[in-house]
Amino acid sequence: MSTLKVYPLSNYSFATKEAQVDEDPSVVARLQRLESDYAQYGMRRTVEGVMVVHEHGHPHVLLLQIANAFFKLPGDYLKPQESNEEGLKMRMHEKLGPESAGDAAMNGSELPGPEDWQVGEAIGQYFRPNFESFMYPYMPAHITKPKEIKTWYLMQMPERQVLTVPKNMKLVALPLFELYDNAVRYGPQLASLPALLSRIKFEYAQ
Amino acid sequence: MSTLKVYPLSNYSFATKEAQVDEDPSVVARLQRLESDYAQYGMRRTVEGVMVVHEHGHPHVLLLQIANAFFKLPGDYLKPQESNEEGLKMRMHEKLGPESAGDAAMNGSELPGPEDWQVGEAIGQYFRPNFESFMYPYMPAHITKPKEIKTWYLMQMPERQVLTVPKNMKLVALPLFELYDNAVRYGPQLASLPALLSRIKFEYAQ
Repeated sequence: MSTLKVYPLSNYSFATKEAQVDEDPSVVARLQRLESDYAQYGMRRTVEGVMVVHEHGHPHVLLLQIANAFFKLPGDYLKPQESNEEGLKMRMHEKLGPESAGDAAMNGSELPGPEDWQVGEAIGQYFRPNFESFMYPYMPAHITKPKEIKTWYLMQMPERQVLTVPKNMKLVALPLFELYDNAVRYGPQLASLPALLSRIKFEYAQ
Repeated sequence: MSTLKVYPLSNYSFATKEAQVDEDPSVVARLQRLESDYAQYGMRRTVEGVMVVHEHGHPHVLLLQIANAFFKLPGDYLKPQESNEEGLKMRMHEKLGPESAGDAAMNGSELPGPEDWQVGEAIGQYFRPNFESFMYPYMPAHITKPKEIKTWYLMQMPERQVLTVPKNMKLVALPLFELYDNAVRYGPQLASLPALLSRIKFEYAQ
């Protein structure tokens, strides 16, 4: 079984940066882009990072909340030539890394970059069989060519970190007991996170 | 990512053996035994095996159906000194192995034993914090001593096998699409199986 060292939520601090607007203004537009990208590049690969922290020894997952409404794991789809691991480091940096190297350089300090994100093992996958919203944790029968595979990776968080959140989003720490068996509120994908993490042995550090 | 070779359901045949009656006649009796065992031996360890087969390239999980009603994975709790792996082999043999060596010995053939079950990696765990029915895929906050930990192991099925089922049970192959997001029918534990299997790469053999 795998072990993951997790630190208290209070070890992390939060800053804000410029809003990051979704490149697609609607679900329909997103599915159209998926379809045209598929025609050009083939199956889309999406990677997302599962950051675990604890409060009083209970694991929490860090999720982005968009427009005070829906929740998502940080990450995005990859360019055709990117590897899952390097691509995920880039996406985590874009979403939650510091805004620019300018201020830090003036202070003589060095800001963390994409290479500072530590990608751990894959804990789950969701497959998109058609150019539709539904995704499943398996390839549906009679589907040979999925349109998208999304892979969730466990992140090894550093002991302390500043997470810089786009100002149109919030970063929230949801306890596993809130997500578990709660597909009604979080959807079946995020509600499956507690089960996917159940085989991981957490070491609660201070 | 892990790979698992899976064979068609039609590769497996089914026989029946004597009924196996639960040692506890009710849920209350079961929880009482758990409590008295806990006082004597400490935390209970339960192990169950996840057997995956396929039909037309879609994964199915083999589940025992008891009394034409509820479903469960084959397995049981362990004696205090048993290891998870050896204990699971014994339980799989007790539940689904051939009834006795007598007939086979007369035929000069050798019947499979506990050692013929191949135990793979752990894919999930459920924790019982109190002497109550509820189990969770995490240790609830403020619980330091769980009363039971149940671990699910992926089984590497042989290419062909006779599975001998107690006559008060049925062995059914449920497709992942039937279990997924279906806690209403199968409970949140079994409904989590598709997500737990999503990171496994299945190789569909014939």
